[in-house]
Amino acid sequence: MHLDPCGVITLMTDFGTSDHFVGVMKGVILNINPQVRIVDITHAVPPQDVHGAAFLVNSAYRYFPAGTIHVVVVDPGVGGRRRAIICQTDTAYFVCPDNGILSYVLGNDTAHRVVALGNADYWLSEVSNTFHGRDIFAPVAAHLSLGISLSQFGDTVNNVVRLPIQIPQVTETAIVGSVIWIDHFGNLITNIRSGMLASFGMNNGYVIRAGMAEICQLNSAYAESENGECLAIIGSSGYLEISVNQGSAAQVLGLKRNDTIEIHKI
Amino acid sequence: MHLDPCGVITLMTDFGTSDHFVGVMKGVILNINPQVRIVDITHAVPPQDVHGAAFLVNSAYRYFPAGTIHVVVVDPGVGGRRRAIICQTDTAYFVCPDNGILSYVLGNDTAHRVVALGNADYWLSEVSNTFHGRDIFAPVAAHLSLGISLSQFGDTVNNVVRLPIQIPQVTETAIVGSVIWIDHFGNLITNIRSGMLASFGMNNGYVIRAGMAEICQLNSAYAESENGECLAIIGSSGYLEISVNQGSAAQVLGLKRNDTIEIHKI
Amino acid sequence: MHLDPCGVITLMTDFGTSDHFVGVMKGVILNINPQVRIVDITHAVPPQDVHGAAFLVNSAYRYFPAGTIHVVVVDPGVGGRRRAIICQTDTAYFVCPDNGILSYVLGNDTAHRVVALGNADYWLSEVSNTFHGRDIFAPVAAHLSLGISLSQFGDTVNNVVRLPIQIPQVTETAIVGSVIWIDHFGNLITNIRSGMLASFGMNNGYVIRAGMAEICQLNSAYAESENGECLAIIGSSGYLEISVNQGSAAQVLGLKRNDTIEIHKI
Repeated sequence: MHLDPCGVITLMTDFGTSDHFVGVMKGVILNINPQVRIVDITHAVPPQDVHGAAFLVNSAYRYFPAGTIHVVVVDPGVGGRRRAIICQTDTAYFVCPDNGILSYVLGNDTAHRVVALGNADYWLSEVSNTFHGRDIFAPVAAHLSLGISLSQFGDTVNNVVRLPIQIPQVTETAIVGSVIWIDHFGNLITNIRSGMLASFGMNNGYVIRAGMAEICQLNSAYAESENGECLAIIGSSGYLEISVNQGSAAQVLGLKRNDTIEIHKI
Repeated sequence: MHLDPCGVITLMTDFGTSDHFVGVMKGVILNINPQVRIVDITHAVPPQDVHGAAFLVNSAYRYFPAGTIHVVVVDPGVGGRRRAIICQTDTAYFVCPDNGILSYVLGNDTAHRVVALGNADYWLSEVSNTFHGRDIFAPVAAHLSLGISLSQFGDTVNNVVRLPIQIPQVTETAIVGSVIWIDHFGNLITNIRSGMLASFGMNNGYVIRAGMAEICQLNSAYAESENGECLAIIGSSGYLEISVNQGSAAQVLGLKRNDTIEIHKI
Repeated sequence: MHLDPCGVITLMTDFGTSDHFVGVMKGVILNINPQVRIVDITHAVPPQDVHGAAFLVNSAYRYFPAGTIHVVVVDPGVGGRRRAIICQTDTAYFVCPDNGILSYVLGNDTAHRVVALGNADYWLSEVSNTFHGRDIFAPVAAHLSLGISLSQFGDTVNNVVRLPIQIPQVTETAIVGSVIWIDHFGNLITNIRSGMLASFGMNNGYVIRAGMAEICQLNSAYAESENGECLAIIGSSGYLEISVNQGSAAQVLGLKRNDTIEIHKI
């Protein structure tokens, strides 16, 4: 299916913002397409955290115009044998290493076309072993934004690497999920979707266990609880989140990614 | 009074830059107005620090083109009953929660028109309880940048929440002010304006007390003092600042926001 | 020689991103040239680290379109007697304090024209003593991007301040270099260029000493080594780098900038 690039490229990396890396990617892009709009999603993905980037890009991409090109570079295998790909879904292009970074996106959306980046005509003339963000991903995204067709960049491939995604275990009386992301405020984002809670049925009372906290209701606003109090809320991505009003749930509860969050009927 | 949007939207939040939050706001804006320019002021306002954001937006907005739309989201009351507003001054629009975040701006400028955001036609179709930056403030700012008139967004309101702003106490022989912001370099920005010093009259000698430091002159450049030395200087926002040449005054003096800075005639 | 501005301005400073400083520079620029593209390189140069900024701007500028204007403000002498300059090379303009910040750039490229900023018509009407980024460098860059000719900004000068750049010492049997930058991942970038290794001749075996580590080969990808293992690799700027696969070489080896890295034939 056809999807016109809309003139927006987003960038997500684990490069941080204390070096020249991200700026240089933008320079490379503007050299090829001076008109394109470049938007940073984040460059603070923890180093080599492919799973975290997979979560973040999935939280971000659906809010961008159709035809946006998302460059996602968390790439511990750079310079080795991992493939680099363009993946087209209904509404977006992704330019990234084929290392599982699209695992959440492809849990919701279909990969209509995937090509393995093979045509060096669309890369910088010199390619380093350590910075394909600059040498391959940025120039490929810029050429793609100009309307170069997918087939020019390399051969079609039929599989994309998928990481195992933790899914909550649901029984008659309990949901056992886990923390999949901790945000800037220390909110604990779980893998328990709001729809899952609805079909679980919580009308007769329940308790949510998050570390030492036991929470017996869902709040609909932070400000409904006391300052410093733990609360459960459906967050902005549609997942159950554990928060502390005006504080950090991660700090207060001492919880980390992958730690268990349980809901029991009572 | 009439003020044409100029095609620039600025963003200031306490969202940090380690998640997808800020990027997503930009995606929402570009979906509505693909031509608008988006400029980050800062996303490192300390979490829920409305007072700090109020100081920063006031330091920033007058340097932007007339008709710039400033989106300022530090919003501990999100999802609760606090209002969301557009406030128009002589030269700028502000889109923000009505929680005091314009207290410094409205100390200098007049709010010509204020509307409470009520018309959901200009919001995202689904509104979360925790992320009105994405669901309400960003789309409203984008529609506003397209020239939609203020009255379309909601009803006019006549009052805006104002926080108490600390003002220095001035006597015949002393000014007692306080630290209102500490910048990235550790400079202590006080609430003592340069004009206040002029009318106080300091020609016959004075001492500035900042923690353990006693400073008996105003410098006109950092480099006039020795490395590591404490100095007093009129900073770039027109306030008295306490600095350490090539160092952090906050660290050297152990001072924090709201700590007292005094000037005594001698 | 003639060089048309291309409509891109980059910014590199030590201002951090927690205040309004960088946003305000962009407001000033957009007030003068609403069409120009502004790209951040980094604002996390360590405070007053002119040498670090000199390394970073050199790593960045060649990837931008010809005619890009690079504003580089790490400026411990602000408000004092240091000059402010525009420097034009073959492909770029630099707007910066004349404090050595172009030392690496001018090690590779020629300064074709240099003017000392003297014409206040292109500055903000009020100039502070502490924030020339906002008051002088940003407006000068914006006017320059509009095509104002160099001679309008001030008098031509014939010398530019150069810092001493550490160069590796090469003997028949050894290269003794040093760490010139540590990146976000903790990679140690040395001042030993790949070409230097080639002419040194390493075919008969060698050992690279970096703190406690002894490395006997050059890798061509991080992923060739075990997780946590120290490795040597030619980095993306063409310098020898010491890295730890999936870790921080700076932390593992306890090395800092200026520490020695040696290569010995064996």
